[in-house]
Amino acid sequence: MMTGEQYRASLRDGRRVFFNGSEVPDVTAHPRFIPAIDRIAVGYDRLFAGGAREAEGSFAFPRSADELRAKMERLHEFEGTFLTTFESLLALQTAGGRMAGPYPEYRNRIEAYAEFCRDNDLRCVLTVTDAKGHRDRSPAQQDDPDLYLRVVEQRRDGIVINGAKLHITAASVTHELVVIPTKNMKRGEEQWAVACAVPMNAPGVTILNSARSVVDRAEAEYFPYSYGKGMPEGFVIFENVFVPNERVFLCGEIEHSATFAHSLGLWQRLGGATHMVRTADMLVGLARLIAEANGTQRIDHVRDKIADMVMYATIVRAGLEAAISSAKITPEGFATPNELYTNVAKYYGAAELGRMIRHIHDIAGGSILTAPHPGDLANPETRQYIDKYMRTMDGVDGEYRTRLFYALRDITASEWSGHFQAAAILGGGGLFAQRGVATRHYDMNRARALALEAAGLTDPSAS
Amino acid sequence: MMTGEQYRASLRDGRRVFFNGSEVPDVTAHPRFIPAIDRIAVGYDRLFAGGAREAEGSFAFPRSADELRAKMERLHEFEGTFLTTFESLLALQTAGGRMAGPYPEYRNRIEAYAEFCRDNDLRCVLTVTDAKGHRDRSPAQQDDPDLYLRVVEQRRDGIVINGAKLHITAASVTHELVVIPTKNMKRGEEQWAVACAVPMNAPGVTILNSARSVVDRAEAEYFPYSYGKGMPEGFVIFENVFVPNERVFLCGEIEHSATFAHSLGLWQRLGGATHMVRTADMLVGLARLIAEANGTQRIDHVRDKIADMVMYATIVRAGLEAAISSAKITPEGFATPNELYTNVAKYYGAAELGRMIRHIHDIAGGSILTAPHPGDLANPETRQYIDKYMRTMDGVDGEYRTRLFYALRDITASEWSGHFQAAAILGGGGLFAQRGVATRHYDMNRARALALEAAGLTDPSAS
Amino acid sequence: MMTGEQYRASLRDGRRVFFNGSEVPDVTAHPRFIPAIDRIAVGYDRLFAGGAREAEGSFAFPRSADELRAKMERLHEFEGTFLTTFESLLALQTAGGRMAGPYPEYRNRIEAYAEFCRDNDLRCVLTVTDAKGHRDRSPAQQDDPDLYLRVVEQRRDGIVINGAKLHITAASVTHELVVIPTKNMKRGEEQWAVACAVPMNAPGVTILNSARSVVDRAEAEYFPYSYGKGMPEGFVIFENVFVPNERVFLCGEIEHSATFAHSLGLWQRLGGATHMVRTADMLVGLARLIAEANGTQRIDHVRDKIADMVMYATIVRAGLEAAISSAKITPEGFATPNELYTNVAKYYGAAELGRMIRHIHDIAGGSILTAPHPGDLANPETRQYIDKYMRTMDGVDGEYRTRLFYALRDITASEWSGHFQAAAILGGGGLFAQRGVATRHYDMNRARALALEAAGLTDPSAS
Amino acid sequence: MMTGEQYRASLRDGRRVFFNGSEVPDVTAHPRFIPAIDRIAVGYDRLFAGGAREAEGSFAFPRSADELRAKMERLHEFEGTFLTTFESLLALQTAGGRMAGPYPEYRNRIEAYAEFCRDNDLRCVLTVTDAKGHRDRSPAQQDDPDLYLRVVEQRRDGIVINGAKLHITAASVTHELVVIPTKNMKRGEEQWAVACAVPMNAPGVTILNSARSVVDRAEAEYFPYSYGKGMPEGFVIFENVFVPNERVFLCGEIEHSATFAHSLGLWQRLGGATHMVRTADMLVGLARLIAEANGTQRIDHVRDKIADMVMYATIVRAGLEAAISSAKITPEGFATPNELYTNVAKYYGAAELGRMIRHIHDIAGGSILTAPHPGDLANPETRQYIDKYMRTMDGVDGEYRTRLFYALRDITASEWSGHFQAAAILGGGGLFAQRGVATRHYDMNRARALALEAAGLTDPSAS
Repeated sequence: MMTGEQYRASLRDGRRVFFNGSEVPDVTAHPRFIPAIDRIAVGYDRLFAGGAREAEGSFAFPRSADELRAKMERLHEFEGTFLTTFESLLALQTAGGRMAGPYPEYRNRIEAYAEFCRDNDLRCVLTVTDAKGHRDRSPAQQDDPDLYLRVVEQRRDGIVINGAKLHITAASVTHELVVIPTKNMKRGEEQWAVACAVPMNAPGVTILNSARSVVDRAEAEYFPYSYGKGMPEGFVIFENVFVPNERVFLCGEIEHSATFAHSLGLWQRLGGATHMVRTADMLVGLARLIAEANGTQRIDHVRDKIADMVMYATIVRAGLEAAISSAKITPEGFATPNELYTNVAKYYGAAELGRMIRHIHDIAGGSILTAPHPGDLANPETRQYIDKYMRTMDGVDGEYRTRLFYALRDITASEWSGHFQAAAILGGGGLFAQRGVATRHYDMNRARALALEAAGLTDPSAS
Repeated sequence: MMTGEQYRASLRDGRRVFFNGSEVPDVTAHPRFIPAIDRIAVGYDRLFAGGAREAEGSFAFPRSADELRAKMERLHEFEGTFLTTFESLLALQTAGGRMAGPYPEYRNRIEAYAEFCRDNDLRCVLTVTDAKGHRDRSPAQQDDPDLYLRVVEQRRDGIVINGAKLHITAASVTHELVVIPTKNMKRGEEQWAVACAVPMNAPGVTILNSARSVVDRAEAEYFPYSYGKGMPEGFVIFENVFVPNERVFLCGEIEHSATFAHSLGLWQRLGGATHMVRTADMLVGLARLIAEANGTQRIDHVRDKIADMVMYATIVRAGLEAAISSAKITPEGFATPNELYTNVAKYYGAAELGRMIRHIHDIAGGSILTAPHPGDLANPETRQYIDKYMRTMDGVDGEYRTRLFYALRDITASEWSGHFQAAAILGGGGLFAQRGVATRHYDMNRARALALEAAGLTDPSAS
Repeated sequence: MMTGEQYRASLRDGRRVFFNGSEVPDVTAHPRFIPAIDRIAVGYDRLFAGGAREAEGSFAFPRSADELRAKMERLHEFEGTFLTTFESLLALQTAGGRMAGPYPEYRNRIEAYAEFCRDNDLRCVLTVTDAKGHRDRSPAQQDDPDLYLRVVEQRRDGIVINGAKLHITAASVTHELVVIPTKNMKRGEEQWAVACAVPMNAPGVTILNSARSVVDRAEAEYFPYSYGKGMPEGFVIFENVFVPNERVFLCGEIEHSATFAHSLGLWQRLGGATHMVRTADMLVGLARLIAEANGTQRIDHVRDKIADMVMYATIVRAGLEAAISSAKITPEGFATPNELYTNVAKYYGAAELGRMIRHIHDIAGGSILTAPHPGDLANPETRQYIDKYMRTMDGVDGEYRTRLFYALRDITASEWSGHFQAAAILGGGGLFAQRGVATRHYDMNRARALALEAAGLTDPSAS
Repeated sequence: MMTGEQYRASLRDGRRVFFNGSEVPDVTAHPRFIPAIDRIAVGYDRLFAGGAREAEGSFAFPRSADELRAKMERLHEFEGTFLTTFESLLALQTAGGRMAGPYPEYRNRIEAYAEFCRDNDLRCVLTVTDAKGHRDRSPAQQDDPDLYLRVVEQRRDGIVINGAKLHITAASVTHELVVIPTKNMKRGEEQWAVACAVPMNAPGVTILNSARSVVDRAEAEYFPYSYGKGMPEGFVIFENVFVPNERVFLCGEIEHSATFAHSLGLWQRLGGATHMVRTADMLVGLARLIAEANGTQRIDHVRDKIADMVMYATIVRAGLEAAISSAKITPEGFATPNELYTNVAKYYGAAELGRMIRHIHDIAGGSILTAPHPGDLANPETRQYIDKYMRTMDGVDGEYRTRLFYALRDITASEWSGHFQAAAILGGGGLFAQRGVATRHYDMNRARALALEAAGLTDPSAS
């Protein structure tokens, strides 16, 4: 197990990282990466303090609906890259189990790899999305074959891959890239059916970073929620990267090209749904707090909007609760939530999020945008005006209300907020894809039978 | 226990019933009431055939989440007035338990009354909604004090009541009126704080009926779904009706004027949610069947609309599942579903129903309105045209598709459908009221705490 | 010009009409057709009373935006078949003008036909929708070639056609069938590219009727709005119908197979939008009246719902107003409304109608379904209860409020209402199609230019 | 007339300005104010270059619907503070006209003041919103009477005012504060019924600034849309500010306390609607551009989302077009748009904006958040990866697509975007208030009459 400090040291491993066109020789010394690294380091220290037993427990997969519920409730206590590692290894192992019949070797490699990561206390990120080029063309039809990551050479001791993987959160501040295909590959597309693991500092790996939602330390007060939450987003390029055989988990077996993504999807969406439930309740709470601070919580249209937010938060929570209470146990013994309910919770949470943000704006009022800055609170000359004019009643002084507006702006009208809302829509493949997944898991036969009974008809497809 | 035939006979008890201005001397002989009576009689026969044990089991209150789930799944096997009786007695007993401390006598009367109904195999209806007059005025401010049902005289052996109760489904074809206050009464409104039980044939009781959604037997084929489902709606007038003491369950104790309605609400909404779940799935099935019959199930916008319906049906079901899996056991030992989830399921189901109906119309096309009539199917001269022009492909002949359109029209564009949609909105007090109930059961403290944590603030109301 | 009585006589022309499997020898004597015929006859009498000049004025096509606005405002004064006739002839003539270059003969035939109809004061219906069979197959791929109406024989003096046309409102009570293709036909589909005019009593024409929304005279009081408004819907079969050359307007010229439908679409949608504007305002008025009658018009959530209805009604009206004020004059000199605005008004009106109905239900309350019947008002024994319990305040007596509930039920929760709502969605080809039409008329180039300017980029497609 | 340079100089007038707690001695030298000042200076130079005649024309009020339409179409050519000045003076003059009967002196002062501003080429901002304190209490009930700006002393030569005005866009970079009451004042609230004009550098005026949406020049490339658009938001405090009589436009005449806000509202909303129309079209264009660049513009669900955006943009435009084509001419000869249509356009544009943003996210995909930075484009070492992997097809190279993502992020997921969306909701008083305004301008009598006609009833309120 690593301490936070050991984790920091582990990042100085020769990785090739760029930010805004400049190479970053040491991410642990760059202001755009420090807040993220600090946060992960705290997570390391926390697990280290708990000792080997707690760490093991954190990695343990839930084996009943109750264990699953308990795990989900603790989720927010872990920092994000730990969760991603957990999800990545669980997804790999689930896929390994599904391929074990025809391809036992892949399963064994995966098990060994998972053990390696746990033993060395590494953090993994899953890399799925390819550059994709023209969306209406298959990998083979693209102007450049590398637009989907592919095997360019098969050697005796391993493979060589080329391509790019996009939207890789935290790549620059973690250790391992788990590479899986972004979609199902068909006959003739074998070179693109590749899964493997690559260390971040492997020769040929380059990471460009987008790190806008990382807030400067100087503005921590003005961004009470998002400060420290930002993570760099990696655009990861693989240029003739060699992968030794023991880290290759798929290479041309097109019938399993979608197995990895399917194994991943559920866990990602469950994580997403859990986060959404917590966020939804937080939004309700924010709306209520500002209504109280403005003295409007008894005004009908404000109550009505908060009631609408309560319905929203409860629908998302009901989806998660139903997903967990209907969990199934897989052949490997893992408790897996109900796919349909999980998707619905995640989908509804994302699709209606904008309306909730709108309600908060409508309830809070213009100071969400124009409340004076933290420096105005610090300077007595200006603070007197805030004390006098931002105060509304006993118990709601000017500073409290001003800082509450900071949180509202940060969560609903800042760059972080834009990022959060877009990511909610796009996580898991966009709303359209998520709805499609839900439909596939719905019991359409039962619905048809109810409809035929209602119509007094027999099934024409049965004859 | 009564057979269906004994039930029929029991309705010839001198009750005073009107339909469209004409007195109905015997409801069992009147075409507007016969379909409803037939349906209830079948329910009686079914329970009778099962024997005393099954009947008792049907009346048993669930005592765990699993029993509750099983009960809910069997709900649709019972006809509606049995369910209403079940709900009414459960609500009365729950209220009796809550009043037992200060008013043990009321609890005892309620227990005795519940036993009486079960022993005599009677069907009860709950009467809640008063005439109400001007909605912005309290009972005492109305031009006529009877606009809320009230006690006009207290005698040594009982009370005399005056007033009207509205929207009493099935009043004319059941046995007992359970009267409870429609809302909380305040000091000075003691005369309106009254709960009691009155037999349908009590002197002074008159029932006007509205029975539009009862379909004539001649049109059974054209209304394959709603035929036989209609129930007369009663407008019940109480003119100086005497109620003996043993049937009086509240008389002036204003602090318990809302106890009955609260006890009832949850069970009614749970029944409503269960029905909504089943209906939602049926609607998905209908959409799918007509898309298959039209050959459009692979067209993107049709798939997208069906996917939207799947999300809808699943959200409603998730609410119900969450309500049951989070059930609490009351002091009386009854498993009661989670109020918040129940309300959300019912509310969402009702609020978005119109969009689902719109999807079905958009998917099905104009023949939902204009498909030729059953008589055209029966006459070979016209049937040939249906066989030729309503057929679309192998397996979808003209008759099947035509009858499928009947079901679609019946369920989404008929008088029954209008009734169903309006009742979905209005059942449980209207959307606005339902949303309010949900908010009251939401854990706002937890939401506030999450928001304060996000904002890095301490609770101003705690100081 | 015909009087109403002459019109009635004109319907006894040997036409072959069925209702519910029975042949109807004389539609003017059949209860399902009489209300519709009565209504059309009143329209004839009104025009007759106005004299030749007014009739001519009614038929005149608007030639400026102001004339168009005036025409639209008078629309509701005409009964529906007059409007349909007007639309049919206008659409034919517009199409004739567009084909005049290569096919002057068709234009001439159309002009002669329009004159014939006006001179003889006939009423026409447009027949567009074919049986269509499997929706995913072209006409030639269907199991039966007649699933799209087609030319089965070309003679020297005319053509012979086979097929069926669906959803033909008022076919059985008007004179002329104007037949046009339902969609664009491609090379190889010449036999289905046919437009012509056929009298209702032509040998080989059979009309099956669906006439559910026609209310019995006995229930006129209970259906104060829809009584007399219902029209029979015709399912019209053409069995080897001969059409003389002078009534053939297209026969195989596939490049003009969609010209007729396009010419029609705009006028139909304009009529639809105009009707929607008026209906929307009526719905607002109904909501307001029942809120006043219940004493709830000052309650916040009721006001909020009415405000939402006002926004709806105004959006629909703004679309119509913008369509008219931006009208273009065609080469033929006709003022034609802006396509895009017209479509948007119609689309939005239909798409959000369900929410408005929901608001009305939520505002009105349960008596929308359960108000006592007209017979109860007529019988003093029952009327006393209505007088006492349906009254709410000075100025709102029991009868007024009860009858207001009749209107609300009739307009929002009856069979007529189901028909109206479904027809709103389906008229003009369904919501999906209407949205598509709008997009085609949108100035996408301007939008792209604004976006490129915002992004500081030059158009890549320009290079 | 001033040049841009003269304008800059005019800001060095001793005004008391703070940013984030530090006093700003010269706004023209402070990085948070420079971009805004640059933009306004360009506007000055443009008008100066046009000469006196063009400037006069720009200030001229439209006197017909056509002039109004032309003015609206040119709106975006003026920078914001010119428009605000125009709106402010127009609103003042409209109010002056309405008060002219009883208070001709106020009208005269207003006319003189407007002339003064035009003659000196000054820029004015309207200050409306007070600090307000507890929202459920009137001005007199607040803990501090200054929570609504008020007259604390009346002298022979003028008045002395105290209070704060919030959300004053551009206060620190313009010249004149036009102060008007935020709401209607009642008897006993005379001290708060005050309107006047105060120069920015008047003794006792202090401006705290919030300037988050001002983008640093170094990031201009990364924010191609919002760079240069940000304006500082002022929190303006008045401490015993003396106002000479000739600048006092209301002082205690409560019956006119709302006259100014009403006069202003319409012009503000019209400006808002015009901006919304242009923005809506830009959003459609952006969606289309990124669909083309991704190769998805023919995929059904993408087309469907763009079609939904087209409907949105067209509804907003229809509202504006209807508002202008129905313009009325006031007694002063000004063409004023229809209030109802204007409000509806603005309201709908704001209320549904979130759904449009969601569509763009769903269409564009994750690179909206993670596209590499401008520095990566500048450095050949990293640019090669962008050239290779962000390219999708001929005509869509890596740089173009990357920069298009910058614009998408800037407009839909940045701090500016959060500001824009919140301001859209809040401008004009929040959605609830806007809907209320619309209802007041709706012709409810006509709607009631249509409803009564539909129900066959006579108006009960008429008797």
